[in-house]
Parts: sequence; structure tokens; C-alpha cells
Amino acid sequence: MSSTNLTFANRDAHRAWLASQARLPAGFRVGTTRFDFTPVEAPKPARMTITLIALDRPTPDFAAVFTKNAFPGAPVIVGRQRLAEPTLGAIVVNNKISNVCAPGGVATSERICAAAGKLLELAGTQVLPSSTGVIGWTLPEPAIVGGLPQAAAALASGSILPAAEGIVTTDLYPKIRRADLGGGSIVGIAKGAGMIEPNLATMLVYILTDLAVPRAELRAMLARVVEPSFNSISIDSDTSTSDTVVVVSSGKVPCADFAAFEAALADVCRDLAEDVVRNGEGVRHVIRVAVRKAASVELARALGKAVVNAPLFKCAVAGNDANVGRLVQAIGKHVGAHAPGTDLSRLRARMGGVEIFAQGVFQLDPTKEAALTSHLRGAELYTSKPTADGIFTATVDYPPHERCVEIDIDLGSGTAEATVFGGDLTHEYVSENADYRS
Amino acid sequence: MSSTNLTFANRDAHRAWLASQARLPAGFRVGTTRFDFTPVEAPKPARMTITLIALDRPTPDFAAVFTKNAFPGAPVIVGRQRLAEPTLGAIVVNNKISNVCAPGGVATSERICAAAGKLLELAGTQVLPSSTGVIGWTLPEPAIVGGLPQAAAALASGSILPAAEGIVTTDLYPKIRRADLGGGSIVGIAKGAGMIEPNLATMLVYILTDLAVPRAELRAMLARVVEPSFNSISIDSDTSTSDTVVVVSSGKVPCADFAAFEAALADVCRDLAEDVVRNGEGVRHVIRVAVRKAASVELARALGKAVVNAPLFKCAVAGNDANVGRLVQAIGKHVGAHAPGTDLSRLRARMGGVEIFAQGVFQLDPTKEAALTSHLRGAELYTSKPTADGIFTATVDYPPHERCVEIDIDLGSGTAEATVFGGDLTHEYVSENADYRS
Repeated sequence: MSSTNLTFANRDAHRAWLASQARLPAGFRVGTTRFDFTPVEAPKPARMTITLIALDRPTPDFAAVFTKNAFPGAPVIVGRQRLAEPTLGAIVVNNKISNVCAPGGVATSERICAAAGKLLELAGTQVLPSSTGVIGWTLPEPAIVGGLPQAAAALASGSILPAAEGIVTTDLYPKIRRADLGGGSIVGIAKGAGMIEPNLATMLVYILTDLAVPRAELRAMLARVVEPSFNSISIDSDTSTSDTVVVVSSGKVPCADFAAFEAALADVCRDLAEDVVRNGEGVRHVIRVAVRKAASVELARALGKAVVNAPLFKCAVAGNDANVGRLVQAIGKHVGAHAPGTDLSRLRARMGGVEIFAQGVFQLDPTKEAALTSHLRGAELYTSKPTADGIFTATVDYPPHERCVEIDIDLGSGTAEATVFGGDLTHEYVSENADYRS
Repeated sequence: MSSTNLTFANRDAHRAWLASQARLPAGFRVGTTRFDFTPVEAPKPARMTITLIALDRPTPDFAAVFTKNAFPGAPVIVGRQRLAEPTLGAIVVNNKISNVCAPGGVATSERICAAAGKLLELAGTQVLPSSTGVIGWTLPEPAIVGGLPQAAAALASGSILPAAEGIVTTDLYPKIRRADLGGGSIVGIAKGAGMIEPNLATMLVYILTDLAVPRAELRAMLARVVEPSFNSISIDSDTSTSDTVVVVSSGKVPCADFAAFEAALADVCRDLAEDVVRNGEGVRHVIRVAVRKAASVELARALGKAVVNAPLFKCAVAGNDANVGRLVQAIGKHVGAHAPGTDLSRLRARMGGVEIFAQGVFQLDPTKEAALTSHLRGAELYTSKPTADGIFTATVDYPPHERCVEIDIDLGSGTAEATVFGGDLTHEYVSENADYRS
């Protein structure tokens, strides 16, 4: 579960809280610019935001993990090369178009880095690029290069909020999480909100810190903390071609306790990951599946993902329908297909603390059904309501609470455990994605 | 593609065609009965249909394949045992409740078989049970046993249509496919319509023939023909706990040509499988993915399923949005996760005959986008239209045509191929499944 248990009454309350979390670590500045353009492949007006994150001084201490999709975007290809560079000085991000398998995409990405670097007195190889948005379209390179001076002119220390707002696509609200420790801070921002089954990962995440953690330690820590955070969530089982998580240290503040830093980094990552789910496309319920006493962490995590990716169970949750038969179906499907030797006779399953399955059979009655329905209603983020023309859009642009649909699966046959976060499957998801590009 | 290319202007035209296909093979009778009852776990009125399929004389020549879900329903557990019995005399099917992991479910199933057997002068072990519907609820055994005499009294040779209508749950229309050969026939019926990723399989399928094919040959043929038919479809990636495909021969007509019989059986299975997709819950587009020049049939089929199970691509298809970036994402996700050694540089992809991807990059322009949109519109089964309260239900109760969204993926690195069928992800699917039990 989130390390926080926040509630927000409205957008203003949420934005005020974001502002309170947004102070940049020492040594960083962010700036953005926005412009209209026309995609080559689909001649309709579109809008793009460029976000620049710049270090006061290039740093050797940065880490990044990228998508495992076999068609990585051009910025991911470039980003993997950047890991071998001695220092990083800036990050340049565009939304709206993801630059995946576009003709000449890598060269375009490199030219944008070079142009950004020139403005910041950096080599292009000191700039990490990211792009997110429609797959298949071509970046409007002249418009981006033309907009970079404005983004550079806007660079300011103080707040990371402009960057958190600049990198989003279909996100309902910006996402910021921070930890303050040892006289410094760790501040992370994330872009969701669809094509989310990080492996790793379906989103863009940038985590900045002024605490001095050397490159090798930072990379080892990132590899560890992404597993229980960004690699344990799934909105829709789709793995983006652009997923990127970057951690950059400006080294301004000595770090006395690496273990405390890693724990704080893990918290920031876990909370951002949960934020990404909570703001997933069309998500009206966050589903948390804790799998315990499994033979391996891999089985526990895969089983949790099988549950949060089972469309029929997700639809039932959307409807506040405690159709736990579909939950058991999802468990049985995964085990039957991927772990057929697993002994399921000791399986115990709970939803919202209510035992629903034990000793090989369902444990249901009308009283329990009512309790389950009440639990589902309590975890709902907002009520679904269509417009007159049958389009469903989210009725909140802030996270009203952090309650989840709580599923506990005890396999009774091992010592490993894992927790996975996912969302329900709603009309809002379909409305969002049946008409995203137009 | 279907071996037929049918179109129907309305329900009556479709029902007339079904009636023309419905003649029972010699040696079989079917009868149904329907009654209201109250589920123990959810005290609301419900309706159940019992379908009996009886042979004039018990036959040793029957075959069946069942779900691989690790929580098989009680009828599947019993059905697997029946395969060892010397003869089969009848099949008893109920809809509405699936009898999965219900306390005492296997004993209940056996008692229902015994009661049906008694009416038909058979041992209970000569009766194959099937149940489909809500998982987790308990069968109303007294009501079922009480209804069996009426179903037995209704037994009639002539038409299989009552059985095709009796076994459905959320299906929009009955499904019948037949082949006439060698003086006999093969007639199959299928129940969809959700929790469909047969492995094998998410549905109930009964195929009756009067052609005499001995048990061993029949079982070997069934094992072969389910792979390119029922094991090559997916509505929602969910694997039911009740999937069952049964083939029964009454042996009334000598079979002179086993190869011709198997080819006809394969056609009936393929067409029924495609029917199940076409009538899948909320399906408004059937998506056919042909994967060619793959390293193995397994890779080809898994890649096809990855495409038809990619939620974002399915949503785009629902919206007649040629968002082929999501198609490539789905391919890349599968290959990245499951076949990372695959060389994708020779991948060529087409939609509706239009080349969209080759030589590592998208091949798109506004003319092609228009052609793709037109192809998607042409494959739409019906237009989505919500009711005033935002509930989406199918506006057809017959299959208007058999056109598909045609995806061709050429991996350029092998000789294997497979074709997979799936559906889009629509508001109708969500409406159906967020409120199925109430």
C-alpha cells in the first residue's frame, strides 16, 4: 500500500499538496514550452509540450532502466547508449508522439539532443531524450528544435511541477512524490497513464536527487527498487515501447547513509507506481493483490498480475460486483497454464478481509456478498457517468483517496510473497482508447 | 477465414438459415426444459435451461477435450472420468451456474447424471454432465432433478436447434455448423460468449455425427482439429473453468473415408470457433491475425493471440481507429517478453491488405490511413449506441456478415504459420461484464 493515506476533496486541495511536494533538489532546473503542429501521417491539429530538465553541472551519477518491448522507441535506443557516457547534463522530453519505428527516428532524436545541448553548453551525448505518445507517427523535428530555446529560457530552480505537468498525455493530474533525508531530497515525477505493464515499464519516470550517490550504487539500487514498484503494476497488460525510469543525482549534498537513501528511493518509486495505477486510463478502482506463501517471488508476482489483468474480473470490480468466481478463474488460468505443478488445495483467498475461498471450495453467503460489495464501493475513486452521447470521461481530476480493492491470496506452499497493483476495466478506459488519436 | 461467407439482413433470415442447418444426425434426440429458481448465494430470481442430448443406443465412439484451468468445474472433473467409460448414452447441460469449486460439486454433478440416466435407462456413468454460468454459486440440484423428466419428455429427433438455444448464457444467438458427407453428417453447436481463451477451451461445444468413426480415431482427430480452431481464438484472454468440446458418433452410417471426415470435422470446428468469436461478449469487430514465416507454430499462434489480446489495440479497432502503433507495440511486447532472440528486422505487417510496417519502420501516409479506416468500418458488425442511462447492448441478434479485420504478420524467418481470431474491446463488453450477475 502507499506509504501515505491521503485524501483530497477537490482539485485545488490536490494541487496545493503537489506544490508542497514540488521543491526541486539542489542542482536542478526545469523548463517547458508548448506549441501546436500538424502530424504528417494524420493532418489534424495537435499540441506538444517540450520539457527540459537541466543540471547545473553534468553528473556521472545517473541510472536508467528501459522497456523490454522488442520495438523500443528511438529515445530508448539512444538512452541505452547514454548509460555508457561519462556524464549526463540534461533530459529533454516531448509528449504526443513517441518516435517508435519512425523512419530515421534515432537520428532525429540525436539531433534534438544536439540542439538542446547547444543551448545548455553540453554535447548532444550529455542529453537524454524521451518521447511518449502515439506510436507510428513522426516527430515534428523543426517545431521541436524551434521550441527548445523557449524551454531553455524558462528553466528555473524551485519547483518540479512544470515538468510533472509537461510530460503527461492522457493523465488526469500530475504525479510527484518526494522524500527528505540527510539534508537533501529525492523528488520523482511520473507520466502514465495507458499501455501500462512495466517490464520495465510503461511510463516515463524521472527521479532527481541532490544526495551524492555514485553511479554504480545508484544503478544497483534502481535495479532493485523497480522490481517491487514499477515492475509490480499493470493497467492493461500492454508494455509500452517507451518506458523509461531515470534517476539523476546532482551530488550537491553528501549522502551519509546509502541504506536510508535506498529505502527512501524505494518509497518514492512505490508511491509513484501506485500513483500511476490510480491515474491509469479509466481506472475507477485500484486493485491491490498480495500473494503470500508462494514457491517463488516470480510465481507470486505473475499470479498477482494474472489477477489484475483478467478482463472479466476487472469488469466486475468496475461494476462493484463481488464476482469472486472470476478471481478464482484468473488464478486457475495462470496456474493451469504456467505453474501446473502447484498444489492449490491449500489456497486461501480474501477480498477486503473477507474469506471467499478455502479448502478447495468457495466460502460465500449473502452476508459476505454484501460485505464485499460494500468494500468495492468504498474503494471506488469516482462514480461512472456517461455524457449524453455515450462518451465516458473521468469526473475527477485529482485522487480523492488512496483506498484499494484488497485481495489476499495465500498459496500455503512456500515463503515468497509479492504485491501487485492494477486497475479495473471501465467504460472510461474504452472511451479513452477507442478515440485517443482523433 | 470461415469456409462460408454468409450475410444476414435480420434475425429472421439468420434463424431460417440456422433451421436449414439444424437437422440432427441419425441416432440422436434433444430435449430441453426451463425453470426459475433462486441462487443460495445471491437471493435474486434466476432462470436456468436444462438441455438433454440422448443417443438412441449408447456408443463407445466419443471424444472430449477440456479446459486447462487449474480450477476445473465439477462437470469437467466428472467428464474426464467419463472418457474411461466403455460407452456414452447422453449429455446433460445446464446454463446459469457453472458448478466450479462449489462445496460437494462433484457429488451433485454425479447425482444429476444418475437422475438423467434413470429416465433414459442408462447408468449415471453413461451420462456426461456440463454446466456453464456464474462461477462460485451452487447448483439448484432439486430444481434440476425435478426438471429432468420434462427435458426427457421433450426429447425429439429432427432438429438440434432446441439444444443450440438451450446451452447459451450471454450469447446473442445460437450457433450451429454442419457438414454433410458420405451419406451422413456432422452437426455441431457452441455456447460462447465470454471468458474465452480456449486452452482448450472457453465454451461448450457438442458435435454429433452419425458417421461411424471408432473411439481411438475420433479422439486423435479431435486432438488435432481443436488446435487450429478452438485453441486459436480469444475473446478476452480469460480461460473458463468449464470449457468442453465433445464429439459423439452414433455409428449409424458407415464412414468410408476417415480423411474426408476429419477435414469436415475441422471445418465444422473452425467455423464454430469463428462463430464463437463473432458472437463474443461485446464483439463488434472480429479480428483475424495470420502470422506467417515464423520459427514455429507455437510462436505464430502466441504472437497472434498477443495481438488479439492487446487491450489498447482492441479499443482502437472498436473505434475504427487505425492505430497501428498499438499493433506493433503488441508484437514487440510479446517478442520482447517471450521470444527475445527473434529477428524482427524482416517483419512485414499488413492490415486489410495495406502494408503498414516494413524494414523496421512504419509505412504510413494519409491515403493509407483512410484506407485502413475504411477497412475497419467495413468489418464492423454493428454500430455502438448507448441507451439513455449509459448501458451499451448489442443492437443485432444475428451475425450481419462474416467480414473480419484482416491482419497479416510476416516474420520472414521461418516456415510455420497460424491464424488466430479475436474480437475488439468495446463498451458493450464492459456493460455486459460489469453487471452480469445482477
